[in-house]
Amino acid sequence: MHVTIEAAEAAIQAARKRAVELGTEMCIAIVDSGANLKAFYRMDAAWVGSIDIAIKKAKTAVFFGMPTGQIGELSQPGGSLFGIEHSNDGLITFPGGLPIVDEDGVLIGAIGVSGSTVKNDHAVAQAGVSVVGVSDLPAHPWRT
Amino acid sequence: MHVTIEAAEAAIQAARKRAVELGTEMCIAIVDSGANLKAFYRMDAAWVGSIDIAIKKAKTAVFFGMPTGQIGELSQPGGSLFGIEHSNDGLITFPGGLPIVDEDGVLIGAIGVSGSTVKNDHAVAQAGVSVVGVSDLPAHPWRT
Amino acid sequence: MHVTIEAAEAAIQAARKRAVELGTEMCIAIVDSGANLKAFYRMDAAWVGSIDIAIKKAKTAVFFGMPTGQIGELSQPGGSLFGIEHSNDGLITFPGGLPIVDEDGVLIGAIGVSGSTVKNDHAVAQAGVSVVGVSDLPAHPWRT
Amino acid sequence: MHVTIEAAEAAIQAARKRAVELGTEMCIAIVDSGANLKAFYRMDAAWVGSIDIAIKKAKTAVFFGMPTGQIGELSQPGGSLFGIEHSNDGLITFPGGLPIVDEDGVLIGAIGVSGSTVKNDHAVAQAGVSVVGVSDLPAHPWRT
Repeated sequence: MHVTIEAAEAAIQAARKRAVELGTEMCIAIVDSGANLKAFYRMDAAWVGSIDIAIKKAKTAVFFGMPTGQIGELSQPGGSLFGIEHSNDGLITFPGGLPIVDEDGVLIGAIGVSGSTVKNDHAVAQAGVSVVGVSDLPAHPWRT
Repeated sequence: MHVTIEAAEAAIQAARKRAVELGTEMCIAIVDSGANLKAFYRMDAAWVGSIDIAIKKAKTAVFFGMPTGQIGELSQPGGSLFGIEHSNDGLITFPGGLPIVDEDGVLIGAIGVSGSTVKNDHAVAQAGVSVVGVSDLPAHPWRT
Repeated sequence: MHVTIEAAEAAIQAARKRAVELGTEMCIAIVDSGANLKAFYRMDAAWVGSIDIAIKKAKTAVFFGMPTGQIGELSQPGGSLFGIEHSNDGLITFPGGLPIVDEDGVLIGAIGVSGSTVKNDHAVAQAGVSVVGVSDLPAHPWRT
Repeated sequence: MHVTIEAAEAAIQAARKRAVELGTEMCIAIVDSGANLKAFYRMDAAWVGSIDIAIKKAKTAVFFGMPTGQIGELSQPGGSLFGIEHSNDGLITFPGGLPIVDEDGVLIGAIGVSGSTVKNDHAVAQAGVSVVGVSDLPAHPWRT
């Protein structure tokens, strides 16, 4: 199941609104459940380096069906997933990427946000997900 | 000079409208004058393989300040630019990518469209450019 | 806004002069605000491995509008940006890359230097920036 | 044996002069005999896509010790080197890249030029080579 373009646009609009409230300039990416780009939006003063990070955060979140920050906790030196960021043409494993799960518990895509502190990136990603699905479910794995 | 996100969105909306009129499902990409992604939009039934083609068409058009199809004419076997598509991480040199030039003749970005015949791709790209600038100017090179 | 070739050459000359004073052999790269190479200079006994590092330092500095060393502090194990160097085809996050900001506060490019200690690399980069702009501004983000 | 930075700069200056005479905007790259970048220069209105092409032309010329156009003749469909451009991370096989050979017949580097017609690119590359060496020698292979 893939996120629709209508949902992707709604998520981007909600994320933009939150970014403006926070006084930040963001790149926002939406990918479908196949980790393929669905929609992308770069605010005018966002960092050029955030383009790739936003897309990689979204891909990372859908690759493993979990928030990027959660993977980052497991990939520290000595951690069980140390070095996982070398897979899949490069992961980004700090906060700002969140899976999008529909009401039936199906993973339909992900959002990735980059452009400010990881706290702000995460808040903007959450704002985007909140209007089209959820990110936190009790049971993993979700159906894909 | 870079295309603004406002202009990028207007171009995408105009391109979408034309795509719907033509009964096609498209990927539409906008890049700035540095060939960096500004906005991207994938209609729900567009080919997954068109994501990369739309982005590469937009990049190709801004890389050389000309329509992608024009490069394709020069890069045929025996042509003066045969093999140019091996540069810049891969070019796409058939129609569907157009530069966006502002009223002062400055190249500010490009649009790339993929998802149907090259004729339709080109028509949709033109619809996008027409609301935010022009693609055809008498004198080259444009200022960048 | 992009750094001009005249400014890029002036920055390289100033950086070379400082490198000679320090008795070092450097690679010096200038990129524009789109992270595209503008000018490059390799002194005769500079390390071959420094070519890519100098270019990546310049790109990294313009990608995020900040000195490369600042990103390096945030990307240590346990840091908020751990692993960011896997983005954008590889970042270099130790000192030697500095943004170039014009008198209106616009990020117009960056310089990257590699070939000696990071202290020397940073000093040579600063010498380059000092003749064409500034690197340290009170308020972020700069306009791009 | 490698081209010196002094010679590289002289070649770039001569090439720039010719480019200005021709009314063109060029990217000019110099590589050493190891195909590693020595110096690079992008005129202000040169195409962004020419950066990579100029560098790849210089590398291609030194990879095989011959003008890029000569390789292009051999790599046409049905030719003996058809597809060679897939090697070495991508070759450019149309004119504009020339080896630089010193007075002892040693290949010391190459120049690559991109930004106009292949005829102009080739003329500008020749102007660059002419002040620091030669490109055409009776006997191949040269010593490397």
